[in-house]
Amino acid sequence: MMQEKAERGRFFEDFEVGQLLTHPVPRTLTHGDRALYTSLYPDRRVITSSDLFARACGLPEAPLHDLALFHIVFGKSVPDISLNAIANLGYASCRFHRPVFAGDTISAKSLVLGKKENSSRKSGIVWVRTTGLDRAGETVLEFVRWVMVAKRNPDSPTAETIIPECPDMVAVPDLPVPAGVDFMRYDFALSGEPHRLGDYRPGEMINHIDGVTVEEAEHMMATRLWQNNARVHFNAESRKDGRRLIYGGHIMSLARALTCNGLANAQLMLAMNAGAHLSPCFAGDTVRAWSHVVEIADSAVPGAGAIRLRTIASRSEPGPDHDDSDTLLDIDYWALMPL
Amino acid sequence: MMQEKAERGRFFEDFEVGQLLTHPVPRTLTHGDRALYTSLYPDRRVITSSDLFARACGLPEAPLHDLALFHIVFGKSVPDISLNAIANLGYASCRFHRPVFAGDTISAKSLVLGKKENSSRKSGIVWVRTTGLDRAGETVLEFVRWVMVAKRNPDSPTAETIIPECPDMVAVPDLPVPAGVDFMRYDFALSGEPHRLGDYRPGEMINHIDGVTVEEAEHMMATRLWQNNARVHFNAESRKDGRRLIYGGHIMSLARALTCNGLANAQLMLAMNAGAHLSPCFAGDTVRAWSHVVEIADSAVPGAGAIRLRTIASRSEPGPDHDDSDTLLDIDYWALMPL
Amino acid sequence: MMQEKAERGRFFEDFEVGQLLTHPVPRTLTHGDRALYTSLYPDRRVITSSDLFARACGLPEAPLHDLALFHIVFGKSVPDISLNAIANLGYASCRFHRPVFAGDTISAKSLVLGKKENSSRKSGIVWVRTTGLDRAGETVLEFVRWVMVAKRNPDSPTAETIIPECPDMVAVPDLPVPAGVDFMRYDFALSGEPHRLGDYRPGEMINHIDGVTVEEAEHMMATRLWQNNARVHFNAESRKDGRRLIYGGHIMSLARALTCNGLANAQLMLAMNAGAHLSPCFAGDTVRAWSHVVEIADSAVPGAGAIRLRTIASRSEPGPDHDDSDTLLDIDYWALMPL
Repeated sequence: MMQEKAERGRFFEDFEVGQLLTHPVPRTLTHGDRALYTSLYPDRRVITSSDLFARACGLPEAPLHDLALFHIVFGKSVPDISLNAIANLGYASCRFHRPVFAGDTISAKSLVLGKKENSSRKSGIVWVRTTGLDRAGETVLEFVRWVMVAKRNPDSPTAETIIPECPDMVAVPDLPVPAGVDFMRYDFALSGEPHRLGDYRPGEMINHIDGVTVEEAEHMMATRLWQNNARVHFNAESRKDGRRLIYGGHIMSLARALTCNGLANAQLMLAMNAGAHLSPCFAGDTVRAWSHVVEIADSAVPGAGAIRLRTIASRSEPGPDHDDSDTLLDIDYWALMPL
Repeated sequence: MMQEKAERGRFFEDFEVGQLLTHPVPRTLTHGDRALYTSLYPDRRVITSSDLFARACGLPEAPLHDLALFHIVFGKSVPDISLNAIANLGYASCRFHRPVFAGDTISAKSLVLGKKENSSRKSGIVWVRTTGLDRAGETVLEFVRWVMVAKRNPDSPTAETIIPECPDMVAVPDLPVPAGVDFMRYDFALSGEPHRLGDYRPGEMINHIDGVTVEEAEHMMATRLWQNNARVHFNAESRKDGRRLIYGGHIMSLARALTCNGLANAQLMLAMNAGAHLSPCFAGDTVRAWSHVVEIADSAVPGAGAIRLRTIASRSEPGPDHDDSDTLLDIDYWALMPL
Repeated sequence: MMQEKAERGRFFEDFEVGQLLTHPVPRTLTHGDRALYTSLYPDRRVITSSDLFARACGLPEAPLHDLALFHIVFGKSVPDISLNAIANLGYASCRFHRPVFAGDTISAKSLVLGKKENSSRKSGIVWVRTTGLDRAGETVLEFVRWVMVAKRNPDSPTAETIIPECPDMVAVPDLPVPAGVDFMRYDFALSGEPHRLGDYRPGEMINHIDGVTVEEAEHMMATRLWQNNARVHFNAESRKDGRRLIYGGHIMSLARALTCNGLANAQLMLAMNAGAHLSPCFAGDTVRAWSHVVEIADSAVPGAGAIRLRTIASRSEPGPDHDDSDTLLDIDYWALMPL
């Protein structure tokens, strides 16, 4: 009598390499999303704070934070890709093609790139390339992610293993050059820090100092804002331990926000080479972050170069005594920085 | 010395049948309200998410959720009607005349329809018809509600009992036909579910699967957003048990949002036939929902029909073993669904 | 190896009287900020709720709450002034020159007015005049505040003591006359209370009735919205007691919001004569407020006068038995009220 009209999501068996999934529920961005991002994450980057500063950088107004776009596109993919995910294993080849603004309507699709059953036969890994598109159908964001997805039935036949080629990083020539962006008139007095690209050295490590203790209401409001409907984030009764797992992207945004201390001029994300959630985060945890400068490169954006960073988020302070089991997140990415 | 400039609200004795109360503090809607609704409730209906989809349905942009309008009009009525309410007993004859948008300014008024003193002489029931109006003075929403209101003085004389006629339901010919709405080009690939009106049968029951554990900060932020100033929702010291009672409308929005799983195409609410809050909800409770299809009807909206649903919210799973004392809400309503 | 690129903030030794600090990260206001203010504080003043009412008062649309502007300008000053503050001691000479609106971009600067080392030699008091400016460089807000700031080194030489002149109040002729504001068509039926300026008497005391129990998520979302990065508000591990100190401005906004009960027509703040945070507030506390009418004055705003109020926020009820150690805040300010 109880009908199954509600979608239970795809299981491992339901994915086929080459499948193109058009995700439903496109999303129009508003200034409300911008304000909520500011209230949820301590990110004080000037380009996303001031319309005037953004215009001086060639943009029509202050864009949304790049990770807001990431989360929205990710959220669109959840019902089709990861409703039955056991773990979100990693990201690669993520490129932010242009900043997005209030008024943009974002849709998303995913191409299944690969799959590999686990030896337990209870689950398998699925690789997808997810793309975010604007109303003109232009790609604004793309990334590869791989997730461990439950099998519907452990006895169903094992599919052929196809593991896609996953480059370690987005090569410098492949970094996006967001149209119109120009840092020739970049005002360091307004950005909050004097450090320009030339002030950073590969190998340098930066402690972002602050810590943020996370609350249930905050991560749920954020995750709903991205229309991510994975139930472990909302339903305290869906895990055996009675705890709500915080959406990994929430930690990503917290970490990126904390980098304002020391990397205030790493303004726009251009690409994410790799990313992994290393342990789960729960309400009450205090999140800290530090970064390593990996590489410096040129950019075709006037007045700017690219900085490659590895940012780590953890429940404990960085340093020689750091307890690695506290590490929550490790992301390797390129950001645009004024020369 | 302490002056009583602050309004303490009407008591049972202060209501007169036929009284028209013009509620203060009209409210202009913004895109900020839209974003906050998305962050507070897991509602992923495409018509309220995408301006492009809304335009393809004949609307100027994505409207606010219909229950956001309901809550704002309800909130306006609180200072005049229910500041001294003991219980919010029920709703009837609720009609959503048109979707509302950022830029609309909403005001509200209530007509006292009836009153009946309780045998205890400590309180009585008051019936009102509350109307929400746009800047042109056109009705955008109306509903009847009845509340149990405390008497100022148990010894004050008993007023004449007048119980208004309260129809069981909004009859099909009385369902609103929101101007301009057109579902002829409705895109099921974008809405998230393939089920159209013809796929539902009276008697069918739909489990909405997900559950949401509720937090204090969330329900207070929501209730303030609707400018509802009933103190039991905000002041932990106003009830003897030290708990803040969650505004019943918060549960209504949670339940309606959960119906996205299985009723994603029940896009706009047209009318609410009946509604009742069956037990109080507190932070920490996990809210679930299921629906019964009651009736299918025609609509003058091109490409659309009306589906009558009964949605139940509860602290426990639906099914034969359901504990009825967990039931929080029972609403019977009409929604617009594509053919 | 761990570089110090992140700003640790100024210590007492770093301030010089006469120094002008231009604060980074200007901020464009949006309708999202307006909605978030409504969701965070129970302020139901009609001028900030309805575009139509605001237009009838000569404004282009509903402005942001005046304290939202205060918090944003204050927040801008934190990285330069009070990152190493031990206590925020007081405010004076605060003037709200004009209401601000979505689309305004606000920047801020501070002039160091004075400094005085404490006898402990571990800290000292710094006085600054902080100014908020619009895109045209016009002052929209200014205030003096003094903070106790830690010394970097107790042994560093004692600087000359310079204590600035700090007037007790903003004199009536110095009250701002916000351009265009006109209360000649002020509609008391829409504002929620009938009390006009002539209904208040110096010496009168008004209990604002309601209480609000405060949550961690709320005060952190508010404080981030103002881009205030003082770590004691966010990091539960930054204080020995493991508690997050609530930003004092959050209490100010709560208190001002509570004054809607009895002072609904004290619409716009014109000036704050004095303000002090008398004890710390933590999540779980229930905040109440009451006000004393201090003085009534004329205003050049058509149809309006100025009311001088002293509003007290406390964890306990006002009255002869009030426990003064519960007092959180005491502010003395001028508001614009219709005649």
